[in-house]
Amino acid sequence: MSGYVRALAQRAREAAAVLATSDGATRRRLIESMAAQIDAQAAQVLAANAADLARGRDAGLSPAMLDRLRLDPARLGAIAEALREVAAQADPLGEVTRREQRPNGLTIERQRVPLGLIAMIYEARPNVTADAAALCLKAGNAVLLRGGSEARDSNRAIAACLHAALREQGLPEAAATLIEDTAREHVLELLQLSDLIDLAIPRGGEGLIRFVAEHARVPVIKHYKGVCHLYVDRAADPERALALLIDGKTSRPGVCNALETLLVHAQIAPDFLPRALAALAARGVEVRGCERTQALSAAVLPASEADYDAEYLDLILSVRVVEDIDAALAHIARHGSDHTEVIVTEDAAAADAFVRRTRSSAVMVNASSRFNDGGQLGLGAEIGISTTRLHAYGPMGVESLTIERYVVRGDGQVRHPESLGG
Amino acid sequence: MSGYVRALAQRAREAAAVLATSDGATRRRLIESMAAQIDAQAAQVLAANAADLARGRDAGLSPAMLDRLRLDPARLGAIAEALREVAAQADPLGEVTRREQRPNGLTIERQRVPLGLIAMIYEARPNVTADAAALCLKAGNAVLLRGGSEARDSNRAIAACLHAALREQGLPEAAATLIEDTAREHVLELLQLSDLIDLAIPRGGEGLIRFVAEHARVPVIKHYKGVCHLYVDRAADPERALALLIDGKTSRPGVCNALETLLVHAQIAPDFLPRALAALAARGVEVRGCERTQALSAAVLPASEADYDAEYLDLILSVRVVEDIDAALAHIARHGSDHTEVIVTEDAAAADAFVRRTRSSAVMVNASSRFNDGGQLGLGAEIGISTTRLHAYGPMGVESLTIERYVVRGDGQVRHPESLGG
Repeated sequence: MSGYVRALAQRAREAAAVLATSDGATRRRLIESMAAQIDAQAAQVLAANAADLARGRDAGLSPAMLDRLRLDPARLGAIAEALREVAAQADPLGEVTRREQRPNGLTIERQRVPLGLIAMIYEARPNVTADAAALCLKAGNAVLLRGGSEARDSNRAIAACLHAALREQGLPEAAATLIEDTAREHVLELLQLSDLIDLAIPRGGEGLIRFVAEHARVPVIKHYKGVCHLYVDRAADPERALALLIDGKTSRPGVCNALETLLVHAQIAPDFLPRALAALAARGVEVRGCERTQALSAAVLPASEADYDAEYLDLILSVRVVEDIDAALAHIARHGSDHTEVIVTEDAAAADAFVRRTRSSAVMVNASSRFNDGGQLGLGAEIGISTTRLHAYGPMGVESLTIERYVVRGDGQVRHPESLGG
Repeated sequence: MSGYVRALAQRAREAAAVLATSDGATRRRLIESMAAQIDAQAAQVLAANAADLARGRDAGLSPAMLDRLRLDPARLGAIAEALREVAAQADPLGEVTRREQRPNGLTIERQRVPLGLIAMIYEARPNVTADAAALCLKAGNAVLLRGGSEARDSNRAIAACLHAALREQGLPEAAATLIEDTAREHVLELLQLSDLIDLAIPRGGEGLIRFVAEHARVPVIKHYKGVCHLYVDRAADPERALALLIDGKTSRPGVCNALETLLVHAQIAPDFLPRALAALAARGVEVRGCERTQALSAAVLPASEADYDAEYLDLILSVRVVEDIDAALAHIARHGSDHTEVIVTEDAAAADAFVRRTRSSAVMVNASSRFNDGGQLGLGAEIGISTTRLHAYGPMGVESLTIERYVVRGDGQVRHPESLGG
């Protein structure tokens, strides 16, 4: 280990102590100033991004990768706007979430404090540099930013905006530290720094997340794949089911809250499924189905067990006819990824059973899987969607970057008065 | 890896799914029945414990270790009583902690669900087998119990009580699975099972906790040492300060919320410190102090930097005179362990600054460090005190063995209505 990241993390940790005691108004102005700096330095950021894109094209990056990397004035404007939304949120710190008086007169408060130093490890999207920094700083944390090498110049230009805003508020630049040298050995070093880093959040493909989980000695919140299910119950409204299916599968197939599998109750299948298959075919969706689904259309390919585990992130859908809600729940228990499950039903008892017997981070009754998103669920912005059942489960906003501690106020209470004699 | 633990964890995970959908009344009866079984099988448990003690004496275990291992009718009664207190707590599951209606009509609920499968890794105390199982099961989790080899027979006898209670309620015995073979290679196997285990909680000495943290691929909540500070401010009431010092240091020196270091403001030191040193000496406390403390009494030994980092767990105290509250806070930032800090002061501004500028899991104003305990803070019982700033920070009760997820209820809302056309 070279110590390169340890030195950066040490400075960032010192900056975290300053952020932790900063007041909410200062942090609000800081994030607003970050947005203003991105507006003011837009030309420099776009020029840096153009250099990344040119290097990426030379290196033969895929069109999808280049698209994730690309910034333009509209995308940059959206980044600044997202920062202003984070700035406008209520200050999560210092809030007393619970207060209780004990029989001995002690007042027990739970109070939110920052986590400390958070390491973000991500891939090609340069917007994460700004988004993640804003969310971490809003919650009083410092952040180590390790983006992908493809976005190196873009990330440096955005970090320059963050640093200008920190200086303007009299806060240490190290509160948002970009790890400029993207050599993989430095990620390994970072993942060992359990004395300095309170949390690592990897964002990107499953490969990156598994790499981080495999090597980390620091706590990690993981968001693996989203294998999201839509279950059309016997008592579903077929029109509603059709709308939720099309929105869930086709409105943005490449994201984690898109549908991957349709489960249809056998009693409604003869009515619903032919219409669903026609609507899917009209939108270019490839269907891989069970035998009963295949019997309905020659266009349906056979689904394997692997298909039911797959996150296609594409216009492909697995379909299975199930005997009843128990069979649907058993399928989800076997193939689900704890991300998002949907039931369509007019039967309140079936809806309750589905909610009770699934344990995914989000369960939807008669609503699209695409609503599992921090903005849509009212968090304002998100740093990711956790499918780890620890600390945070589902979309993570500013509050999930804090922790509650205990503040106890007394007037001299001791636990064992008898120990005072003698 | 032999697969021995994987097979056990697989069955426990299946049991977790059953527990997760059990109702609160069943889980309450289960824990009550566990208490009744311990009462009913007391003779068997005590006989097994006698066998462990005899083996321990032959193996030359220390008196302190043998004391931790020892059960007697009173201690067994206290275990059963603790289970009844856990049973009587409110059901943490299903509770809707927040509810919000979005502008599009969606109702967003946050709802508590169990973590899933929890692995407890602990040392000689057999009471942990019962306590930890009760807390995990109360919150709807299954638990893997891996106690120390010294307590092997005691743990088997207690596990038999747990299994009898599970059978009585028609629940799978695997919900509380004792890992009977205590070979260390099985702990290593357990720590790799990230597909089956949601959380590992090590309880014991720092060596055990570091071993678990070093090898775990599963999430771990750590509670390292408690280096707890008492800061006597310039504006302290000296009588109150003396009581909090003696209670904090001497009422039970071997526990993590006992005091290890006394910091005294220079202005109050000439009045307070001689009285404090006399009171400590009268109770047999060895003092290791800074030069100004040494000047007050020939009995004071010099304190090294290592003393300020030490968790003595004994009748030894480090003492330092500090120029002001800033110096006290700097000392805590450098030497603290995020466990418990106390300020004694009549100055509200000093108290506020101390609360705001410490980030330990518990901060006390004019109250003893010894109150940092789940029972004392109103949690009823605790599975440990977390000094990890993630998921839980401070004493962990039943609620910290759950996680909030999202339940979204709509009437057919889609995210992109335009995707439905065509």
